[in-house]
Amino acid sequence: MDVLTNISQLATCPDNNDQADIGCIEDAALVWEHGKIRWLGKQVDLPAEYQKSYAQDCSGKLVIPGLIDCHTHLCFGGWRGNEFAQRIAGKSYLEIAAAGGGIASTVKATRDTSFQDLKQKATGLLDEMLALGVTTVECKSGYGLDFDNEIKQLEVYAALQQEQPIDLVATFLGAHIIPAEFKDKRSEYVELLIGQLLPEIKQRQLAEFCDCYIDEGAYTLEEGRQILQAAAELGFGLKIHAEQLTYTGAAALAAELGAISAEHLERISSDDQKHLAKAGTVAVSLPLASMYLKDDYIDARSLIEAGVPVAVATDLNPGSSPSGHLPLAMLQACLYQAMSPAEVLKGATSIAAKAIARESTVGSLLPGHQADIAIIDAEDINHWMYHFRANACVGVIKNGVWQHNRL
Amino acid sequence: MDVLTNISQLATCPDNNDQADIGCIEDAALVWEHGKIRWLGKQVDLPAEYQKSYAQDCSGKLVIPGLIDCHTHLCFGGWRGNEFAQRIAGKSYLEIAAAGGGIASTVKATRDTSFQDLKQKATGLLDEMLALGVTTVECKSGYGLDFDNEIKQLEVYAALQQEQPIDLVATFLGAHIIPAEFKDKRSEYVELLIGQLLPEIKQRQLAEFCDCYIDEGAYTLEEGRQILQAAAELGFGLKIHAEQLTYTGAAALAAELGAISAEHLERISSDDQKHLAKAGTVAVSLPLASMYLKDDYIDARSLIEAGVPVAVATDLNPGSSPSGHLPLAMLQACLYQAMSPAEVLKGATSIAAKAIARESTVGSLLPGHQADIAIIDAEDINHWMYHFRANACVGVIKNGVWQHNRL
Repeated sequence: MDVLTNISQLATCPDNNDQADIGCIEDAALVWEHGKIRWLGKQVDLPAEYQKSYAQDCSGKLVIPGLIDCHTHLCFGGWRGNEFAQRIAGKSYLEIAAAGGGIASTVKATRDTSFQDLKQKATGLLDEMLALGVTTVECKSGYGLDFDNEIKQLEVYAALQQEQPIDLVATFLGAHIIPAEFKDKRSEYVELLIGQLLPEIKQRQLAEFCDCYIDEGAYTLEEGRQILQAAAELGFGLKIHAEQLTYTGAAALAAELGAISAEHLERISSDDQKHLAKAGTVAVSLPLASMYLKDDYIDARSLIEAGVPVAVATDLNPGSSPSGHLPLAMLQACLYQAMSPAEVLKGATSIAAKAIARESTVGSLLPGHQADIAIIDAEDINHWMYHFRANACVGVIKNGVWQHNRL
Repeated sequence: MDVLTNISQLATCPDNNDQADIGCIEDAALVWEHGKIRWLGKQVDLPAEYQKSYAQDCSGKLVIPGLIDCHTHLCFGGWRGNEFAQRIAGKSYLEIAAAGGGIASTVKATRDTSFQDLKQKATGLLDEMLALGVTTVECKSGYGLDFDNEIKQLEVYAALQQEQPIDLVATFLGAHIIPAEFKDKRSEYVELLIGQLLPEIKQRQLAEFCDCYIDEGAYTLEEGRQILQAAAELGFGLKIHAEQLTYTGAAALAAELGAISAEHLERISSDDQKHLAKAGTVAVSLPLASMYLKDDYIDARSLIEAGVPVAVATDLNPGSSPSGHLPLAMLQACLYQAMSPAEVLKGATSIAAKAIARESTVGSLLPGHQADIAIIDAEDINHWMYHFRANACVGVIKNGVWQHNRL
């Protein structure tokens, strides 16, 4: 049995769609045992039976559920720092992609990188995320784009699930772009996805979700529909990269197909907002992609008012969002998505959990939930979000086990 | 004698005004002794006499001069996280200030905080900056705004200069805002600054520069001229907070008075750019203030083309820029000031040194300069700037002494 005492603000982040409801308890204590939360409440109400347990004094700090990064492209070969300098000099993301850079260059690098090297690199990224208080990470394939290399990426995730503490939730994104060798025979690649990769991945349980990038330079709406319908028939949950660079109607498709989440949505229409609300689809905002691409930010206020819960994630990838720093994404969501610190926290905890179908076990601090906990060196949420530091997280507990303790 | 070997890219950042010239040497080595750089060059050219010295293998990392944060408000009481939530909800910085928040509320908190508590808090901030590779910090008073409390802030800096490794360069900013008790007798406060504070500070050598915030809600151009001329007569170097929220003509005043630097400049005119170039005044850009205030960014390209060197600093303060994370400021300068990673690095090293009259000793890696060195876990500058991490700095040497070594 473990106890945290002297918590200045305990944000429980209850599992509901009220974006601003982070269920704060001031002057709180929290108890866990065997990896599960057992009790939480005002410290003055701490039951006598827990008062003899080992207690960590949090000396006036903020305690939150372990953060959830519900949209990453964690496993990739190489980096693309050279393209960053090109973008600063004025080239657009689509121009760089058309010249052979962009996702295609990462596909080449990922194919050329061994399983072991990919795993080692992803481990380094996860280690840094864990230190920031991130305890669950969604991770996509999509840089292999052939049978062996898509499977290789998903096998990296399966191995990492065993070898390090963060819980990984794998998503198959074979439909990221059309690989160069299928440029003139797109339907053959779609057939490879539907006929070979999806069944293999399902049978081996290598991914829980299927995602599709519907946009200029990626997949058409009709291709997306075909792939996602096939995935749904096999029992995959659905996600869609929608309305990022151009408007395609992909958000409406997400609603129509009952996707668990729609990602990006920088160019969503107000009708689509209503569709998503009705379908119960989570909007996954990716503020670092907007920041790095100097693009518009998602209109989070309209989405929230329309009844769509808004998650906040990093989009970690080597091109449009080369950072796994979720608190920076959260700060940008405060500033440029006009979300309050509470709304942003909810978006990176229980609403993010909902975007990966984990809301019954993580994302909230409730008795019976996993003891995934982050301790932040700030007296409250406002202070944490506004005072940007390299790492304000001073304690991380995953499944009840201390991973970092700088208290 | 200490040696760094296997440096992938050594950015020497020579002391000149060519913003993009970071003097890169690939596959380099570097030698220092008694706190000074002794030799640097291609590793194959490392003289035999240094080959037996203790060597730290940098295994393909980037080595740069210790970073210089040439504009901070390091010493302050309290924080203002509550105002952050108000700004997200739509209130402007000037509206919050008019309602008694803003700088005035930090003045109250700073007056109410003891010397020891202020020193302890600033020490914590400096510790985090040092870990990021920052080895020299300019720090302003300006939250005391009466005789005793302005002196208290400057005494905190004098004590910290003795007690921790970062070199501090103190600036007197008694002319930050007009304190509330002098609201209806502004000239009396100006007289206090000129007649009492400036002479005392000069005599006790508590500050090297005098700064003035000329803007709506702060000082008029004429008040600024009066204060700065008095400071110049006493031998202070001059700095001006100019053209941040409104255009006042302060940049032209900076040029006229030969100020060493003009800060902010979000609203500078093209004529003013020419004046600054002619006067040799450094433009200090503060991208985190633009980010936090959702304001325009400085037009760095026009300034550079006009011949004005552009420094990049954090503006660390509890209101408009509550972060001491210089690499984040540098990333924002790449993205939103259209500066290349090389230009930004130069702006946070040798050009920043010029903004505080330290270019002959720090900001460049040259034989005879101070051995202030940061080792970055990236193969080159582009990669470092684009892949934002909590802290990519894995080694810090200050005055020849290792402060951090995570290599």
